[in-house]
Order: sequence, then structure tokens, then C-alpha cells
Amino acid sequence: MKKPIGVFDSGVGGLTVAREIMRQLPHENIVYFGDTARVPYGSKSPNTVLRFSRQIVNFLRTKDVKAIVVACNTASALALPTIQEEIDIPIIGVIEAGAKTACEVTRTKHIGVIGTEGTIKSRVYTQCLTKLDSDITVVGKSCPLFVPLVEEGLVEDRVTDDIASRYLGELKDYNIDTLILGCTHYPLIRNTIARIMGDQVKLVNPAYETTKSLKELLARKGLLMKEEKKEPVYEYYVSDAVERFISFADGVLPCNVSEENVNSIDIESYELGKDN
Amino acid sequence: MKKPIGVFDSGVGGLTVAREIMRQLPHENIVYFGDTARVPYGSKSPNTVLRFSRQIVNFLRTKDVKAIVVACNTASALALPTIQEEIDIPIIGVIEAGAKTACEVTRTKHIGVIGTEGTIKSRVYTQCLTKLDSDITVVGKSCPLFVPLVEEGLVEDRVTDDIASRYLGELKDYNIDTLILGCTHYPLIRNTIARIMGDQVKLVNPAYETTKSLKELLARKGLLMKEEKKEPVYEYYVSDAVERFISFADGVLPCNVSEENVNSIDIESYELGKDN
Repeated sequence: MKKPIGVFDSGVGGLTVAREIMRQLPHENIVYFGDTARVPYGSKSPNTVLRFSRQIVNFLRTKDVKAIVVACNTASALALPTIQEEIDIPIIGVIEAGAKTACEVTRTKHIGVIGTEGTIKSRVYTQCLTKLDSDITVVGKSCPLFVPLVEEGLVEDRVTDDIASRYLGELKDYNIDTLILGCTHYPLIRNTIARIMGDQVKLVNPAYETTKSLKELLARKGLLMKEEKKEPVYEYYVSDAVERFISFADGVLPCNVSEENVNSIDIESYELGKDN
Repeated sequence: MKKPIGVFDSGVGGLTVAREIMRQLPHENIVYFGDTARVPYGSKSPNTVLRFSRQIVNFLRTKDVKAIVVACNTASALALPTIQEEIDIPIIGVIEAGAKTACEVTRTKHIGVIGTEGTIKSRVYTQCLTKLDSDITVVGKSCPLFVPLVEEGLVEDRVTDDIASRYLGELKDYNIDTLILGCTHYPLIRNTIARIMGDQVKLVNPAYETTKSLKELLARKGLLMKEEKKEPVYEYYVSDAVERFISFADGVLPCNVSEENVNSIDIESYELGKDN
């Protein structure tokens, strides 16, 4: 089915998920939306994140997408359960798949989750994990400075080490053997996190498992693109200016991103009930 | 004149300006708006900041304000010049007053400015300062991590010292004797900045001078509130949930802020041309 897959995030972090889709599903067309005018979502309230996510879903539907991936952990936590009931095309987030992997990986059944304030406060990973296995105990920790540190380029830096040691220090007391990277920016400081947590703690990046779930879902629904020799089409939309997005995307994606395939749109006009 | 003064900011930082207005103009009524759903503005494009600011001005006009203070440096830099030509009530930002004070304070005529990426890139402080005195040289430096560090509560911390030393280190080579704190969050880490810059550099906080200019402006236009025994009325509006705003405001303002005088509104619906 030639219709594109819609992928959205609060900003550029979700490109790590788009990259995984390009790798695992190389024939699929993708429409990516990054809400760069209103980023970040992590410190905002559930109602606001839900309103923003609904506007984005409305926008993606105008692009005739066959399925939607919520590549943002905060939106997956705060908006996905509601939106899932409101639309008739498949929509998946990053949380279930990440939780499933963590469940398979853990031996001690003590799992840690790091993410934004919104994700951790929602306790959605805890609910998901204990539903999969009621013996599991979960400890969550929000890490508000990780996103600004990554965006400032301090990926390998003593300040990032210092902040990470404080955030993660608490988790080390809980004897966890598995840690979910519950925010799309965190895989970019994976090395720092791994060094502090030590070899005995396995890190789970939900992007990989989410894409596997997406593939299964599309296959089950008969929505997979038939293999073709044609190059897939990737389109990108953002709510703020395109320049900054292009420079970040160029560093993350394996393909060319330029002003030709990135457009800025007025996302606020996609409120349900307004004329689009 | 009993009409309130409108004050707006991208979030909570502008409360430091509101506090100064309460102090210098204790009889005036104030309507404050903080765009907490879309904060921060500092890394966003000029067009987006202008669109958001226009919506906020439209909202404040529905409250029948007699004048508007743009308490956000980024919005003052990127939106104020355009909006000033579009409306017929007095509107002032924080930049002109800050620049005027810096001009009066400097002896070496080498002035530094720190602020968000948007403020520094706009070069608006440089334009303002060199218009006041063409002999002045200005060096600007954006400090993207200061806002997240303050919001994380790391006001006195070795990490804030470390980051501040890197940002400000560059400025020390320029022999400046005056430094403008060109972002409303920065006065909250004034001590750290002062320690790194040393005694020979004077710090200018535009909030104080902006309020002095506001007072003069209102007097000139005959808009000052006549002194009364009645308590002033302070109303607060935000675009995200009220709880987080209340807890921050309580720490900054000298008066009581509670759910009774803080309301959450849908700022996106105040687009000009839409039905409000």
C-alpha cells in the first residue's frame, strides 16, 4: 500500500525513530512532523500535550497516512490512549514496545525508566510493565536537563557526566538490571548513561522495538508496501522555521534532507472543528 | 486610569518584571500572561515569535489594558518593532531601557550582552546601543543552558558555575565593564555571573529601568492610576496548566497567587482574524 506512514514528535528527537523505520522498512514512504514551534512537551500538562497531539494527527490525516507512529514518549504517555479511541487508522506509540523488550531482558525484575517529567509522572511505563508481569517493580526518574544538554551538543562532557551521575545515582540503589531510555533524545547520550550504570545494566532503546511492532502491525492489516524498485518518498513538516530542522536531521538521517522536502506549516490551524 | 497594565512573557521569567512594576507602581492593576504551553521562545524563529506575540497582544486587548509591557527579551527583540506599528496603545519592551542604562554605566564603552539565541542573533541590543552612542562596541553571547539550569533549581551549583565559566569566558577577553542580563531568568543566577565576571564588570538588569520608563510613559500620556486606598487587582493567565505557574509565582512575587486569580486559556484562538 503506497500511502505513507505518519511519524510525529515534539521536535527533532523522533528522527531517531524515523531512522529506524527507514532501516527496517526501506520501501515505505514517510511523512514526518516535528512540532518545533512548541517543543518541548516534557514539562507540559497532559491536556496541552493532548491538544497539540490531536492537531498533529489531524494534519497527518490530510496527508492520507495509512498508520501513525507517535515517536515522542511524552505524547505516547499522555495523548495516545485517548487518540487511539478517536481515529480509525492504526496508531502506535513507543512505550508498549519498549516495555515489552525490558520485560524480556530483565532477570532481577527490577526495571528503571528515565524520561521527561510528563512521561515519568504519568507512570505509564510502570502500568505497562506490571500489566505484562505483575512481579516486576519499576523505578522512574525524570531527567529534565538531558534534552537541553544534548541540544547544546554536550554529548561527551564533564557537565553531562556530573548531571547524569546525580540523576542516575538514585536508580543505582534499586538494584535494577534494565534501564529504559524513555525519551528519544537519550540514545544520543547512551555512552554516558552506560558508563555510569555499569555493565550489569542493559539499556533499552524503544525505537528499535517500536519499528518491529509497526512492521508486524502493517503486515497483519495488509498495509505493508509491496517491495518495489522505486525510491521511497520522505516528506518532513515542522511548525517552526526549516533551517534548524534541516541541520539536525542531516546529522541523524541516512538520506538527504533539504529545503525541497521540508516545509513549515501552521499546526494550530489543524484544530478539530476548525476549517482546514 | 483604572484600566490594567498588560504584561507578557514566554513563561514565568517575566514575573521578575511584574514584581518590579508592583514595587514601583503599587496602585496599578496588572494582567499578566505567560505562554507556558509554548515556552521557551529563545530558540524559535522570528516569524513564530511574532505570531505568538500577536496572539497574546490580541488576548490582552480583550482585557482592555491601557498599555503593554513585553517582559520577554526574545519577544522584545523579534516581535516588538512590528507590533508597535500595528496597535494604538502604548507598548514597550525590556531592551531599550536596558540599553540606556548600560550606556550610562559604561566607561570603557565596551558592553557585553547575554541572552537567548533569538535575542543575540537579532543583534537588537547592538543596534540600540550603537544608536545611543556610536563609539560603543558590543559583544553578545547566547547562553542556552541558563534557563533550563535555573528551572531545574541549580541556582548555586558547580555545574552552573562550570557552564557559566564557559559562556562568560569569551566575554572576558573583550575588556567589557558592563554586562546586560538580556533574559528575564538571568537575574536569578546573578551571583554566579557576578562572581565569574569580577567586581570591575557592572551587571544591568533591564527589569528595573523598564519599569521606570513605563512610569514615565504612563505619566506623559495621563494614564497613571490616581493613588487610591483600594488594593490593586492582579490577574494571571497562562496557556498551560495553572499549578506549576502558581508554585513558581509564589516564590517570585510579594503577593498571594492562587487558583482564584490564575486562569488557563487557549491562546491559539486569539489569532487575528479568527472569532474571539
